[in-house]
Amino acid sequence: MTAKNAFYAQSGGVTAVINASACGVIETARLHSVRIGKVYAGRNGIIGALTEDLIDTSRESDEAIAALRYTPSGAFGSCRYKLKSLEANKREYERLIEVFKAHDIGYFFYNGGGDSADTCYKISQLSETMGYPVQAVHVPKTVDNDLPITDNCPGFGSVAKYIATSTLEASFDVRSMAKTSTKIFVLEVMGRHAGWIAAAGGLVEDHGIPVMILFPEIEFDQERFLAAVKQKVEQHGYCTIVVSEGAKYPDGRFLAEQGTRDAFGHAQLGGAAPVVANMIKDATGYKFHWAVADYLQRAARHLASKTDVEQAYAMGRAAVQFALEGHNAIMPTIKRVSQDPYRWEVGEAPLSEVANVEKFMPREFISEDGFGITPVCKDYLIPLIQGEDYPPFEKGLPKYVTLKNVAVEKRLPAFEI
Amino acid sequence: MTAKNAFYAQSGGVTAVINASACGVIETARLHSVRIGKVYAGRNGIIGALTEDLIDTSRESDEAIAALRYTPSGAFGSCRYKLKSLEANKREYERLIEVFKAHDIGYFFYNGGGDSADTCYKISQLSETMGYPVQAVHVPKTVDNDLPITDNCPGFGSVAKYIATSTLEASFDVRSMAKTSTKIFVLEVMGRHAGWIAAAGGLVEDHGIPVMILFPEIEFDQERFLAAVKQKVEQHGYCTIVVSEGAKYPDGRFLAEQGTRDAFGHAQLGGAAPVVANMIKDATGYKFHWAVADYLQRAARHLASKTDVEQAYAMGRAAVQFALEGHNAIMPTIKRVSQDPYRWEVGEAPLSEVANVEKFMPREFISEDGFGITPVCKDYLIPLIQGEDYPPFEKGLPKYVTLKNVAVEKRLPAFEI
Repeated sequence: MTAKNAFYAQSGGVTAVINASACGVIETARLHSVRIGKVYAGRNGIIGALTEDLIDTSRESDEAIAALRYTPSGAFGSCRYKLKSLEANKREYERLIEVFKAHDIGYFFYNGGGDSADTCYKISQLSETMGYPVQAVHVPKTVDNDLPITDNCPGFGSVAKYIATSTLEASFDVRSMAKTSTKIFVLEVMGRHAGWIAAAGGLVEDHGIPVMILFPEIEFDQERFLAAVKQKVEQHGYCTIVVSEGAKYPDGRFLAEQGTRDAFGHAQLGGAAPVVANMIKDATGYKFHWAVADYLQRAARHLASKTDVEQAYAMGRAAVQFALEGHNAIMPTIKRVSQDPYRWEVGEAPLSEVANVEKFMPREFISEDGFGITPVCKDYLIPLIQGEDYPPFEKGLPKYVTLKNVAVEKRLPAFEI
Repeated sequence: MTAKNAFYAQSGGVTAVINASACGVIETARLHSVRIGKVYAGRNGIIGALTEDLIDTSRESDEAIAALRYTPSGAFGSCRYKLKSLEANKREYERLIEVFKAHDIGYFFYNGGGDSADTCYKISQLSETMGYPVQAVHVPKTVDNDLPITDNCPGFGSVAKYIATSTLEASFDVRSMAKTSTKIFVLEVMGRHAGWIAAAGGLVEDHGIPVMILFPEIEFDQERFLAAVKQKVEQHGYCTIVVSEGAKYPDGRFLAEQGTRDAFGHAQLGGAAPVVANMIKDATGYKFHWAVADYLQRAARHLASKTDVEQAYAMGRAAVQFALEGHNAIMPTIKRVSQDPYRWEVGEAPLSEVANVEKFMPREFISEDGFGITPVCKDYLIPLIQGEDYPPFEKGLPKYVTLKNVAVEKRLPAFEI
């Protein structure tokens, strides 16, 4: 049996720990050099495969690959690009096969979320439909935590830890200022369709913080919301609100789309947080501050969850192991086997059941009034944010690695995407 | 000589390390119980003194006081309240003297920025003008780093570390996505008049990141800015922009102005990031993301600078020592005595020279084009963000202390402020 090369690519929004999965893939492949030759990474995700823009990861030292474990972002570049169905776009699949053949690629590892699982599933079908043998394994990744079957998704635990910590810290701040100044703090977090990240903000309730969560899963009831905020301020002197970017009015419009105006009558630009903050100000007069965490939350490797880093690495390692065992069209998963003490193990899911399925917050994770999380949700979340895993620092800043990313020589004509 | 009690209060916007200064004051006072009786903290700053709402810190355990060192925010509450001049508001000064007399207070420690230094200076003059002996020492604190004489201000080093780290992490993120998605990332940071915090974002340049800074000190030149952004994206594929909330158009309008003012009469800002991001989008079509760090930056004790924590503590300790040595109307300062290796010691400054003086970024700290920082600025900044000083964690979150804050029994009639 001769060694086949492997292709690895990162897809969609990157996270604090997607490179830890890359580290798991590459380090595990290096341990099995008899069966896996080189790991070629797609420059900017699947686009790198289509354009034959491959990165030779064998040119990176063991130290550089090890440093991926604590480096946020996508070390090889990511992309937002979804392959159409085989029927609709045979040309791209044929091109992928050409590239795979030209570089003797027999393993395909795709590191992404729901859309990427769909792409990976399509690739996995190449063997049958186009007669080219390739084993495709999806490596789960998404801060949104919305993949099915797996208990949680690598990337989520770290963003949840960051949001819970930031909410706690900012709430302590507003509590200090509330007597004469700010009484309302609004933090906007990611999660276009699922409220998992927003839910993490609810963990500060156990630290005595009056907090309200606005989930995408719960229709926004402005009147009830404002009454509840007012009640919390009257009781505690202040209130923290964590709003998902995906929070919606009953008619389906995002809160962030609502065109509010500032004191000068200028239209306010973007963001659910300023919309919510101004809405409260208009109704109550309370002074507010708001923050939009945006990329900060998903890139915050300095505050990664140790559990998350370990799981991200394990998913990369398991993907290679599954491929070596002959599997195709699957995704390793995280199985929670015990709650207290928390224990997990690696499971597997068929890609046909993962692709294009979104997992929302179960209703029983959201409090009855729709503005908080339940004890069962806290039990779910807490193990995922457990443990710290600090990167090394140099001159006061994290010492993250930037790879050389040496290109593999092209063997094919150019391809327009 | 009998022991006099001390009054300590926190003023203005709180920081990640103002409680470390409180810790320094209280622990040092406890070491000198022969001369300092109890430390009474003002609940919600100077308002606590006016309303005789004092907190008896002797009711807190040594462990709780020690935990202040790693707890962000203002443990006793802060306020935005500036005393008028003695001539304009004799009533409040008379009230303060009544409260000081009623509780045998001979030491006044006020922990704040420029406005607070002014209040502290006024209090220091009570001895002479109103015949009541009190020693007033100001403990410097401000994330804005805009106090004069002192080399830097406690609170700044930690926010600088947070902003530099966050800018680095988010820039790695946008670099990953730039091929098919986001090319522009805009981070809005604090700094109403002085660009020190924004400057910290410039430190990522040494990590290969194309970054542009918009300082309050430099008039915003939209045309030149957009041309420079375009050039950076063409060269690097992406660009990060760090914009100070205080960035201004040539006519003096803030990019972010919302039209509301705080209790000191300062314009309340927020929202420069979406303005800048949309401006770039309109001119170039580049896809953008933006974040507003707001309270997250000044509350981020989880990423505090070790240097900053040590200096904050030392300022609190020195304030007590100065008072014991008989000083009045002064502020301990940080003196940089050596650059490499960085060494600093405690100095002192007369409050008459500190009050109401703002220190801006020197022009030689800003690059010639106005959009970056110079090597001399980097030399200034790097020691201040040096070292990590992580808080303890429990269940995945920092274990910050909330004090009991037991009230001292009132001895005076109520007072309306």
